[in-house]
Amino acid sequence: MGKIRLYVDHPLGAGKSVPLDRDRTHYLFSVMRRGVGAELSIFNGRDGEWTARVAEAGKRGGLLEAVGRSAPQREPPDLWLLFAPLKKTRTDFVVEKAVELGAARIVPVLTEFTNAERVRRDRLQAHAVEAAEQCGATYVPEVVEAVKLGSLLDGWDPARRLLVCDEALAVPAGDPTGVAAPAAILVGPEGGLSEAERTRLHALPFTRPLSLGPRILRAETAALAALTLWQAAEGDWR
Amino acid sequence: MGKIRLYVDHPLGAGKSVPLDRDRTHYLFSVMRRGVGAELSIFNGRDGEWTARVAEAGKRGGLLEAVGRSAPQREPPDLWLLFAPLKKTRTDFVVEKAVELGAARIVPVLTEFTNAERVRRDRLQAHAVEAAEQCGATYVPEVVEAVKLGSLLDGWDPARRLLVCDEALAVPAGDPTGVAAPAAILVGPEGGLSEAERTRLHALPFTRPLSLGPRILRAETAALAALTLWQAAEGDWR
Repeated sequence: MGKIRLYVDHPLGAGKSVPLDRDRTHYLFSVMRRGVGAELSIFNGRDGEWTARVAEAGKRGGLLEAVGRSAPQREPPDLWLLFAPLKKTRTDFVVEKAVELGAARIVPVLTEFTNAERVRRDRLQAHAVEAAEQCGATYVPEVVEAVKLGSLLDGWDPARRLLVCDEALAVPAGDPTGVAAPAAILVGPEGGLSEAERTRLHALPFTRPLSLGPRILRAETAALAALTLWQAAEGDWR
Repeated sequence: MGKIRLYVDHPLGAGKSVPLDRDRTHYLFSVMRRGVGAELSIFNGRDGEWTARVAEAGKRGGLLEAVGRSAPQREPPDLWLLFAPLKKTRTDFVVEKAVELGAARIVPVLTEFTNAERVRRDRLQAHAVEAAEQCGATYVPEVVEAVKLGSLLDGWDPARRLLVCDEALAVPAGDPTGVAAPAAILVGPEGGLSEAERTRLHALPFTRPLSLGPRILRAETAALAALTLWQAAEGDWR
């Protein structure tokens, strides 16, 4: 952790020079104060993750040199997320979490009751890139232009199953006497648990590790995902 | 939807008078512009949900009359969420989502690497109440005072299993060739899908409803929960 990880829209290979765009130049040299010789991780969504070294550092641009591949390219499963745009913060949040949770494509859909605030595809795509930088993904899901639900269904490939989350489908309150055994979920801080904490936890008879997939989830995402898995497996979503 | 739903810290029963605190007085009469005779839903976390009518509406207070019970009390399963406090927005988010996803108790824990920003228990508890008002829950999880992880483990009841989400436990990248069938998840807008949309979707051969438990999830929570369930069942979390 702590290593800088940047998305670059450029082919990657051993010894390749990789120019930095203005935003990343500013971030790397001004915000993070790195200079020539500094090491970081880069990925382009296609060629895996590479270790790179800063070769030139300027005010308005810079050059990296790709040194060696540090992780293979890893595509998420072929899962799309279609969602009706929400208010700005909550839409950003959905995009960020969809990347962490491994969606392959993000589709804003306009339904009859969607508040048709304008969807800024480019801004959401940039947000997806940032989320991929943060979560260790080598893949960045494409955010496509907002599309009407009707048109989307007209052209739907029936080989792709569509799971519909609709509040009208919420399970009616069943037996309110919960029978699940008591349980608790522990989500550590962004910096991770310490070795001592980890060792103690693993030695305790009542703990069990819970795996949340191959990407690094932010703490709040881990909390939600863990609650969801538990509710579905043992709680009142069964 | 659209009906006002308020938490009140007062016993509920047929014909009972229920005083409003200052915040809810302001919200109900000034923000939402309701007056004497208006109907709303109330709950206190213990006695189920009740239909109530405004009996008195003043500037600094008001009185409701509980008319009849509209939903039984429903306790979530005995699941606690322990989490290391994050930055304000993300902590608020965790609390909000823990209520929606049906946690019974919320425990801020201080670990070795937790950035010990002061945790304001009362603010988080108020946030949990708001989330319960919004998600149709009749139960409000208690947010307890922040506690050190070590002390918590010292006094742990071994009958309560503790699931540890730790990034060091993330599954190492396995077979990167996903074999899951193509899929998509659809999350409707906050106002729900229209009847026409719903009818069409249900008639299509490639759709399948996905149930996300007995509480009403906000759209962004539904998106996350659905992604999680799919990844665990069919995606790269298996």
